[in-house]
Amino acid sequence: MPSEDDTKDAVAIVGLGSMGMGMALSALAAGLPTFGADVSQERMAQFIEQGGQKLPAQDQNLVVSAVAVVVLNAAQTEDVLFGAEGLVPRLNVGAVVLGCATVAPEFARRMADKCTEYGVLYLDAPISGGSVKAANGQLSVMASGTPEAFHAAAPLLDAVSERVFELGDQVGAGSAMKAVNQLLAGVHIATMAEALTFGMTQGVTPDTFLEVISECAGSSWMLENRAPHVVAGDYSPHSQVNIWPKDLGIVLEIARSNGFDAPITETALAQYRKAVDAGLGAEDDAAIAKVYAAQAGVRLPGAV
Amino acid sequence: MPSEDDTKDAVAIVGLGSMGMGMALSALAAGLPTFGADVSQERMAQFIEQGGQKLPAQDQNLVVSAVAVVVLNAAQTEDVLFGAEGLVPRLNVGAVVLGCATVAPEFARRMADKCTEYGVLYLDAPISGGSVKAANGQLSVMASGTPEAFHAAAPLLDAVSERVFELGDQVGAGSAMKAVNQLLAGVHIATMAEALTFGMTQGVTPDTFLEVISECAGSSWMLENRAPHVVAGDYSPHSQVNIWPKDLGIVLEIARSNGFDAPITETALAQYRKAVDAGLGAEDDAAIAKVYAAQAGVRLPGAV
Repeated sequence: MPSEDDTKDAVAIVGLGSMGMGMALSALAAGLPTFGADVSQERMAQFIEQGGQKLPAQDQNLVVSAVAVVVLNAAQTEDVLFGAEGLVPRLNVGAVVLGCATVAPEFARRMADKCTEYGVLYLDAPISGGSVKAANGQLSVMASGTPEAFHAAAPLLDAVSERVFELGDQVGAGSAMKAVNQLLAGVHIATMAEALTFGMTQGVTPDTFLEVISECAGSSWMLENRAPHVVAGDYSPHSQVNIWPKDLGIVLEIARSNGFDAPITETALAQYRKAVDAGLGAEDDAAIAKVYAAQAGVRLPGAV
Repeated sequence: MPSEDDTKDAVAIVGLGSMGMGMALSALAAGLPTFGADVSQERMAQFIEQGGQKLPAQDQNLVVSAVAVVVLNAAQTEDVLFGAEGLVPRLNVGAVVLGCATVAPEFARRMADKCTEYGVLYLDAPISGGSVKAANGQLSVMASGTPEAFHAAAPLLDAVSERVFELGDQVGAGSAMKAVNQLLAGVHIATMAEALTFGMTQGVTPDTFLEVISECAGSSWMLENRAPHVVAGDYSPHSQVNIWPKDLGIVLEIARSNGFDAPITETALAQYRKAVDAGLGAEDDAAIAKVYAAQAGVRLPGAV
């Protein structure tokens, strides 16, 4: 058992997917006693083997200063926090929840309000950077919340991130910025695919496309990051196609509830849905290029 | 009068708009005897004041080694080369035409074929980089053509560009790459506007948007270049909205003739057309943000 002294600054990560596992191992590497939870026994075993501890089961108090919830969406976040085995009623007063999933700002505000009823702090803290940066403790966090929430979250934030954008004391600002970033990132990947395959119809090879465009005004962060996957014909998932119907869906849900028209985002979303329908959901998101290639009858690198 | 020795490596620029003027003045600065032509007497006067010479009128031979045609589109290019006062029949054998407008690859190939009938070389040489880089002799050129065409064009290319992408010996490859670049650049500007105004509906101010996103995965070259215009509320045209219905129109014309679906490009084009319809055509292309702001009812910086 950890001593009293160890546990007072212990942290927990709920959701040990590629992002959450990276954060949990970064927390361990920073010397923080770290609890973890995941539905996968395989992932739990991997975490414990690396020095992590299993989060105590239902009804037990959780003596941790900070819990990061690194799950897929709003529904999973709410279940983790307030469901049948919900964490928040079991936390000490003054502990902080970091909401790391991409969710609507309104949802984040509702979670914060419910935490307040238990004397628990809430930091709206969506993360960005991908699995490699997560593994290296180099995430970007788009964070907003009270100074007390930032203070309580500081040891965990220090361990997992290289950059924390402090977006003010209003919960929701972090999630709003994350939605803005996902709108851009999702559209840019799909546009990379549209341009790369369009170029192929005109005799521009994918490697020449990448070499030239990455030095021109048509470049984007996502183009430089994802076009190499198409050039290599390697769709091992760094970030899955499946992420985008979810995240662009959240963007459009927020947009519609505000009467905001986002036609480019809608068009990109339709392309990702075609990719999912084509059975590409679990591939790297650069595989959206396959939707275009199939329509245009061009053969991508590595295609048989 | 320039001496025989001066004129043998003289060059000419036809079209002294913001790009052509910059190229012409860069050629002068590099010590090349430079002829210019433009329909605007004001621009001609400005060019001559800076040391340029007026291109000889119809029926006179043109003793130049290279002519860059820096006009708006394919129709103007063809008129300059082969119209009533067409240049090509007046050029020496072995001179080179640089086609700098954004045109379809097929059009570039046709121009090259017609030049060949006169013993004139053709370099498919669309330019990129904007008016500031043009003025500083720092353009990027996406060039393709025979080694002879590259050789004849070298002194002029050296004077006007910091980077020449040599895309092979087939005319059309340069124009294809330019179309690919314009697809991306045009979509990225419109997406920047969509994301920036979407963020405003969620309380993300334009300056915070620029500060955070330019360091995140949602960034693009165009976002970093154009979002500052929106933040400053300054729509003085560096590159006009009017460019995009033209250039994305060329992209879609090429795409359709190849049976290629480019839905994101089509959606962005529709937004630029709305901007033109709203009377914003002559403003900086960042003014596409005004289309979104009007729809969403948000007030951009500098708006009254």
